[in-house]
Amino acid sequence: IRAADAPRLQHLVEDFHESDLGDLLEALEPEDRPRLIELLGPAFDFAALTEVDDAVREEILEELETSTVAEGVRELDHDDAVYILEDLDEEDKAEILEQLPPVERVALQRALEYPEGSAGRRMQNELIAVPPFWTVGQTIDFMRETENLPDTFYEIFVIDPGGHLLGAVPLDKLLRSKRPVTIQSIMDDDPDRVRATDPQEDAARLFQRYNLVSAAVTDEAGRLVGVLMVDDIVDVLDEEADADIKQLGGVNSEEELSDTVWDIVKSRSTWLFVNLCTALLSASVINAFSGSLQKMVALAVLMPIVASMGGNAGTQTMTVAVRALATRELGRANAWRIIRREMVVGLLNGAAFALLLASVAVLWFGTANLGPVIGLAIVVTLVSAAFGGIVIPLALSRLGVDPAVSSGPLVTTITDVVGFFSFLGIATLWFGL
Amino acid sequence: IRAADAPRLQHLVEDFHESDLGDLLEALEPEDRPRLIELLGPAFDFAALTEVDDAVREEILEELETSTVAEGVRELDHDDAVYILEDLDEEDKAEILEQLPPVERVALQRALEYPEGSAGRRMQNELIAVPPFWTVGQTIDFMRETENLPDTFYEIFVIDPGGHLLGAVPLDKLLRSKRPVTIQSIMDDDPDRVRATDPQEDAARLFQRYNLVSAAVTDEAGRLVGVLMVDDIVDVLDEEADADIKQLGGVNSEEELSDTVWDIVKSRSTWLFVNLCTALLSASVINAFSGSLQKMVALAVLMPIVASMGGNAGTQTMTVAVRALATRELGRANAWRIIRREMVVGLLNGAAFALLLASVAVLWFGTANLGPVIGLAIVVTLVSAAFGGIVIPLALSRLGVDPAVSSGPLVTTITDVVGFFSFLGIATLWFGL
Repeated sequence: IRAADAPRLQHLVEDFHESDLGDLLEALEPEDRPRLIELLGPAFDFAALTEVDDAVREEILEELETSTVAEGVRELDHDDAVYILEDLDEEDKAEILEQLPPVERVALQRALEYPEGSAGRRMQNELIAVPPFWTVGQTIDFMRETENLPDTFYEIFVIDPGGHLLGAVPLDKLLRSKRPVTIQSIMDDDPDRVRATDPQEDAARLFQRYNLVSAAVTDEAGRLVGVLMVDDIVDVLDEEADADIKQLGGVNSEEELSDTVWDIVKSRSTWLFVNLCTALLSASVINAFSGSLQKMVALAVLMPIVASMGGNAGTQTMTVAVRALATRELGRANAWRIIRREMVVGLLNGAAFALLLASVAVLWFGTANLGPVIGLAIVVTLVSAAFGGIVIPLALSRLGVDPAVSSGPLVTTITDVVGFFSFLGIATLWFGL
Repeated sequence: IRAADAPRLQHLVEDFHESDLGDLLEALEPEDRPRLIELLGPAFDFAALTEVDDAVREEILEELETSTVAEGVRELDHDDAVYILEDLDEEDKAEILEQLPPVERVALQRALEYPEGSAGRRMQNELIAVPPFWTVGQTIDFMRETENLPDTFYEIFVIDPGGHLLGAVPLDKLLRSKRPVTIQSIMDDDPDRVRATDPQEDAARLFQRYNLVSAAVTDEAGRLVGVLMVDDIVDVLDEEADADIKQLGGVNSEEELSDTVWDIVKSRSTWLFVNLCTALLSASVINAFSGSLQKMVALAVLMPIVASMGGNAGTQTMTVAVRALATRELGRANAWRIIRREMVVGLLNGAAFALLLASVAVLWFGTANLGPVIGLAIVVTLVSAAFGGIVIPLALSRLGVDPAVSSGPLVTTITDVVGFFSFLGIATLWFGL
């Protein structure tokens, strides 16, 4: 492959699907990736670049000549082209756009003007739109004769002369209707639609809710500007879940398997640093009770148990809350009910584990009074954990902050501080230390 | 609504989409749900039951007469019917199946024989299959004349007389071809296919990878038995992400917002109990050093910091590993590279935070020797955290255990035990306590 044997390489990748070609790119050494693309020339399907990790794509695009990229982007579907261009720096983006034919350039520029993460960035601009007075026969003939049809489509749209969306006809309905029937009589006159400026997550939830395969995208005036396809929505849902999972685990949502050690050290150390600060806060709470600890070393042995139970219970509640917020199941309507429910769960589990842990503590250290002390501390900690676990994500989301990112450290801080403070504080009062 | 005003209710829900009807059911008091369904009678679309939480569905189905359920199931798409029937107990299932027409009964029984969570359980059995020698015109006429076509479809399948899958033709290709063209000449003769016994997660990854909207489902002999649709796949991907997020947060993957307090207390307490056991293990490690703690109370103040840094770093690595395993990005091919990378990340972050925390400890307690002790402990703990965080999920997945479920407690146990043991152990040796 390093022999620069272009014809043989071209022959090898000829039948590759873009996903497989993407995998091949990722498996290569970084310096071989742009070389492979240059060797393949027009035989390289740039859609493969939409299937690789962001870091890999950016690296490759930096290495390639802008003319090569422009050449490749021209062959792409509109949404894939946007996907590749949106992460480039302004200069390269402008240079590549300049080398494209005017029609494509304008379309891409318009798509890139929609906010990042909006439906307008993900939509296809190739679609079939017909006037309502056409017949089924006319429409089918039009599709047979037109050269430049979209690659795949599942419905055709109906528009008025001003471009406003009037309706949609699924392909199977078109196929099943007789030729003389008018489009107007078979169209769905209230098709599902997405605003180009809507966040893509909202569009994804709409697809999921109503089991859609495609949906019209309109501008503020109701004019049809594009179409969203379910395969892009699948990616949106997957990215969303991916980000939530990583953020809840204290990992940057952009981290990918192909990242370099250095990138990972930097991004993970941010979270470790936040954790260090909260841990120092808890440590200073402990330090305030150092006199008590010295007099009764059993407290030092038991205090991590209280904090760890609180941390675990808080994480449970927080996980459920963050997920329910992401899927739009948790909102104003049921927030109070869920807060109440979590508090009751915290109280009941607190009581159960208070009994259990009190018995263990008494048996272990032979001090009867340790029982009520640790039991009381567990109840206080688990109820605070439940409260923090549900109220913090709700408050963050109401403030417009992504609850998946910052709930974790905040909840842990609360459970640690409350756990150590309640246990050591109650013990100090009870035993008069 | 409690006035049992059936006609008015029927009129109200007439235009409801099944998802909205499902939301309505969830918003009602539990005892009103079956009553609503009985009042609505045939106007109630049983598909709404596929849109509600499992617990709600099971409760409703228990209340309803089997004849009502049979009546409703008969109107459903095959896959929705399977979805509703699969969670019922054997007796009710048999009773409902008996009341169905023979054709549907046999089809449902066959689907229910596929393993739980397999593609066969999720597929549609209504599809269009034609012989390869038909022309486009014949096929379109057939579709226009046939009454009992599937509700929606995006491709037609091509089979031989034995029912073996030969190919597939997307609808848009069919529409664009001239009437005399034969199906054989336009069909894709190697369509994406899924085995009925394949796990649904594998099918979902195939859809995602190749951007499919539907795929043929075949039996072991390659005979076409059904079709998988992308809307079901979207649900599969969502359920999978949901389960991973919850399990990583120590929550049962089946937990839903509509669960009762009692269900939640039970399921969450299992995890809290596991956590208690691992916390007791860490506490006994601390207890082994109680002499040292008594002589130097600063150790008690600092030890939770070491454990918490380890827990955080371990969770980071574990989150990345569990997610990469779920998306099939992490496998035998790159396991060693990722293990090495994580260890290096652990070592580098360990070194950085060792310096930082050593300075803090020395400044805080004015004991110069605390610096190297806590620094060394942090390095040991963060490297073990990285090792545990990647090796435990990999090992669990190789053993066929879902890594999302049990990695968390195992990794935390390791980081806690190593954190406390290394810090207190090194301190005891260093200061000769």
